[in-house]
Amino acid sequence: MTQADRAAALAKLQDFLRIPSISTDPARASDVRRAADFVMAELRAAGLANARLVEAEGRHPLVRADWMEAPGKPVVLLYGHYDVQPPEPLDEWISPPFEPDIRNGNIYARGACDDKGQTYILIQAIARLMHEHGKLPVNVRVLIEGEEESGGEHVTSYVEKHPDEIRADAAVVCDTEMFAPELPTICVGLRGIVYGELIVEGARTDLHSGVYGGAAPNPIQAIAEILAALKDRSGRIQIPEFYDKVRPPSPEERRAWGRLPFNEADYLEKEIGSVSLVGDPAIPVLERTWAQPTLEVHGIRGGFTGEGAKTVIPAKALAKLSMRLVADQDPAEAVAQLQAAVERATPPGVRARYLPFHAGAPSLIDPTNPFIRLGARALTDTFGTETVYIRSGGSIPIVGLFQKHLGIPSVLLGFGLPDDNLHAPNEKFYLENFYRGIDAVVRYFELLGE
Amino acid sequence: MTQADRAAALAKLQDFLRIPSISTDPARASDVRRAADFVMAELRAAGLANARLVEAEGRHPLVRADWMEAPGKPVVLLYGHYDVQPPEPLDEWISPPFEPDIRNGNIYARGACDDKGQTYILIQAIARLMHEHGKLPVNVRVLIEGEEESGGEHVTSYVEKHPDEIRADAAVVCDTEMFAPELPTICVGLRGIVYGELIVEGARTDLHSGVYGGAAPNPIQAIAEILAALKDRSGRIQIPEFYDKVRPPSPEERRAWGRLPFNEADYLEKEIGSVSLVGDPAIPVLERTWAQPTLEVHGIRGGFTGEGAKTVIPAKALAKLSMRLVADQDPAEAVAQLQAAVERATPPGVRARYLPFHAGAPSLIDPTNPFIRLGARALTDTFGTETVYIRSGGSIPIVGLFQKHLGIPSVLLGFGLPDDNLHAPNEKFYLENFYRGIDAVVRYFELLGE
Repeated sequence: MTQADRAAALAKLQDFLRIPSISTDPARASDVRRAADFVMAELRAAGLANARLVEAEGRHPLVRADWMEAPGKPVVLLYGHYDVQPPEPLDEWISPPFEPDIRNGNIYARGACDDKGQTYILIQAIARLMHEHGKLPVNVRVLIEGEEESGGEHVTSYVEKHPDEIRADAAVVCDTEMFAPELPTICVGLRGIVYGELIVEGARTDLHSGVYGGAAPNPIQAIAEILAALKDRSGRIQIPEFYDKVRPPSPEERRAWGRLPFNEADYLEKEIGSVSLVGDPAIPVLERTWAQPTLEVHGIRGGFTGEGAKTVIPAKALAKLSMRLVADQDPAEAVAQLQAAVERATPPGVRARYLPFHAGAPSLIDPTNPFIRLGARALTDTFGTETVYIRSGGSIPIVGLFQKHLGIPSVLLGFGLPDDNLHAPNEKFYLENFYRGIDAVVRYFELLGE
Repeated sequence: MTQADRAAALAKLQDFLRIPSISTDPARASDVRRAADFVMAELRAAGLANARLVEAEGRHPLVRADWMEAPGKPVVLLYGHYDVQPPEPLDEWISPPFEPDIRNGNIYARGACDDKGQTYILIQAIARLMHEHGKLPVNVRVLIEGEEESGGEHVTSYVEKHPDEIRADAAVVCDTEMFAPELPTICVGLRGIVYGELIVEGARTDLHSGVYGGAAPNPIQAIAEILAALKDRSGRIQIPEFYDKVRPPSPEERRAWGRLPFNEADYLEKEIGSVSLVGDPAIPVLERTWAQPTLEVHGIRGGFTGEGAKTVIPAKALAKLSMRLVADQDPAEAVAQLQAAVERATPPGVRARYLPFHAGAPSLIDPTNPFIRLGARALTDTFGTETVYIRSGGSIPIVGLFQKHLGIPSVLLGFGLPDDNLHAPNEKFYLENFYRGIDAVVRYFELLGE
C-alpha cells in the first residue's frame, strides 16, 4: 500500500471507531445504526453498489452486499461485525474509548481490533481490487452484523431463513488473532458459548442485618455457595457429565501446539498479571484455553455496594455466568446440566434459577480444506513467514451457523495480537497488521481467483 | 397529649424527615449538617439554651446540650442520632423516602423510626416538661450524633476524650423496637458489629473470557469460594474459635423468651417472605438473632452487571461483609479470626484481604438496675401493659462506649415496631408510638425525679 492509501484507510477507520456502537446497550441504538450506515456507505464507495441494510423488528440491521460477476470463480462470504463491547470501566482507559488515539504504531479505541479494524480490512481489500481492476477475482457476498457482542439473534435468524441469499463456497471471517507478532495464523477451532444470568432470591424485601441476621436467608451468601459448588478450587467444573463429550486434541495437534512460541512465565507476567494461573497444571495452558470448557462469572451484583456501609440483607443477587464449550459439547445439553447443578447446589431459604440469554456451538474445521490452505498461503506470502494453525478460546457462533446452514467452512484470517486488550480497557489494533491484513485479503482473493 | 400538641410535634417531625441526612454519602454532607442544625434549634426551642454543635475536622457534628439545674437529682444522658441509612433501592419505595407520607396511622420516610422519630421523642419530652413546669425533674445531658449509620467515629472519640462533659448516672437511648405492638419493651442486650470490605484481586486488568478463560483467575469465583468457605450450608460460621466466647442466655432468659408472643410461621411469612428460614433449627429463632453471632454479606460487586452480556473476566471483586458479635466476643479478636480464615480460604491465583471499617462491642445490661426498672415502670404506666425485657440483634456501639468510658448502664426505651422496615424501602414509624413515646419519656423523667 502507498503511504497515501494507508493514510486514507486510517482516517476512515478512525471515523468508524468514533461511533459508540455498543449493541448490548439500548441507549446506544442510534449509534449502532450509524455504524451500520457507515459500513453500507463504505461498501458502496468500494464499488459494491447494491450494499444495503437488512432490517428486522427490534434488532440491529445487517449490512449485505453481493458482487457475483466472476462466473466460474469461487463465491466467498465475507463476515465481520460493526458492534462493540461496552467500554466500562471507563476510568482505566488512557485515552477515551471512542476517541481513537495512535500511540507506538497502535490505534487505541473500543472496537479497534474487535472487530471494526478487522471488518474494515475486508472492505478496504474490496475497494483496492475494484479501484485497480474495476472488478474482483472472486465472487463476493458480504454479511456484516451489529449484534455479535449481544447474541447475534438477527444474523442467526437470517442465516437460518435465507441461506440461498448467502450461498457460498467458503466464508472468510476476520475476527481472530495471530498467535504472536509476525506469526501469520489461521484459527481452525473455536469454543462455543452459553451466556446467561443466575438469579437468587431470598426475602420479600431488603432486611436489616441486625434484626434478622441469623434467621433470614442471604441471597449473596447463597449465590456464593452455588458458584463455589460448581467448580473445585483447581478450577475443574463440578457438573456431572459436563466433560463427557469433550474431544481431546489429536496427538499431531498437541505436538504442533507444543512448537508454538509460548512461554508460560511470560504469559502469566505480561498478559495476566496475577499471582498465578488457575486450572489443572497437568494440562498445557493452550489446551486449557483452546480445548477445555470453562464456567466463568462475568459480573455479580447484590445489596449495597456504594461508598461506606449499609447493614442490609438484600432480597436478591444476580450473576452473569457463561460456559465456553468445546467440540463435541452441545449448548442445550450444557444448559440443562448447569440448571440441574444449580438446583442441587441451592442452599435452604432461597430460590435460584439460571436463565440463558444466547448460545453458540463450538466448531472445529479441517485444516486440509483448500480454502484454508490458500488462506494460509496468502498470509505466508504477505508476512514472509510460515502460517501456523491454532485454535481460539473465544466463540464466534457464526462459524457454527455457516457450517450448519450453508455447509461451508470458515477461513479465520486473524490480524489481532495477543495484547490487544479485547473486551477490556485500552483495546488497540497494531496498525501494521491493519495494512498487511488488507494486503493479505487482496492476495487471498487473487489466489482464489487463479 | 392534646390534639394540637400532637399536630405540632408531627409537623416538626416531618420537617426533620425531609432532610436527606445520609451520613455514608459524602455528597450529602450539607444535608447532614442541616439535620444537625435542626436538632440544635429544636433543643433551644425546647428550652435548652446552651444547645450547640461540637465540630471535628472531616466529621459530622455532634449536638450537645445540658440542663443541670436539679441538684440532688439523677443525671441522665440522652442519646439519639440524626443521620439515616441510604434509601436505595429507590424504585421499591411507595412514596419518596424524603417526602414523609402518612398512611394508616404510620409515617413513611427514611429515618422515620431509625432514628429521627425516636430521637425527636426525647426532644419533645424535654419541650413538654419545660413548657409545663419551666424546669425538668432530672438533670439532662443531650448527645445526638450524625454518624451512627457510618461508624460513629466522632462520637466515639468524643466519649473517649471528654467523658467528664457527659458524666451521668445512666444513659437513655431511643433507638430500638418493641417486641410487638402494644407490648412495652426494654432491650437489655445488643449485638456488637464489625463491618468492612473483602477485596479480591486477580489479573492486572479485565480479560476476555474466551481468550483467557481456563487459565486466568476469576476474582468473582474466588470471592464466592471464600464466602462459601466461611459458613456451612446451615449458616453456621466456619471460622475456628469464633464461637468460643459466646455466652449462652441464662435459663431464666430462655424461659422468658419462650413466653413472648412469637410465631415462627408468621415471622417467616409476614416479616421475611422467603421459602424458609436459615440457621440451626435446634436454636430458637429469637436466640439465633439475639444471642448468636452472624457473618453477613451486605453487598457484592465485580465485573459487568449492566443490561445484556459482556464476556469479561474482571480484575477485581468486592464484598461488604460484617460480623454481629455477642457477649463476650471481642471485635478485634473476631477481625483477626476472620482475616485468618479469609487467608486460608483464598484459592490459587488471587489475592484477598478483609479491611474492617468500624467495630463496636456487644453489650448486656443487668435488668435489676434501678434505672432499667424505673424505665420499665414508665412504659408500663404509659401503655397499660407489663413491660418485657428482650435483646436486639442490632448493634448500638454507643452503649458499649458508655459502659466502658462512663461506667453507666444504658436504658433502651424502644418505640419501633418489628415491621417498620429499618434499613429497607418503605421505612415507617407508627405515629401512636411516637406520641406515647413522648408520654413515656416524660413519665420516666418524673419517676427518676421522685
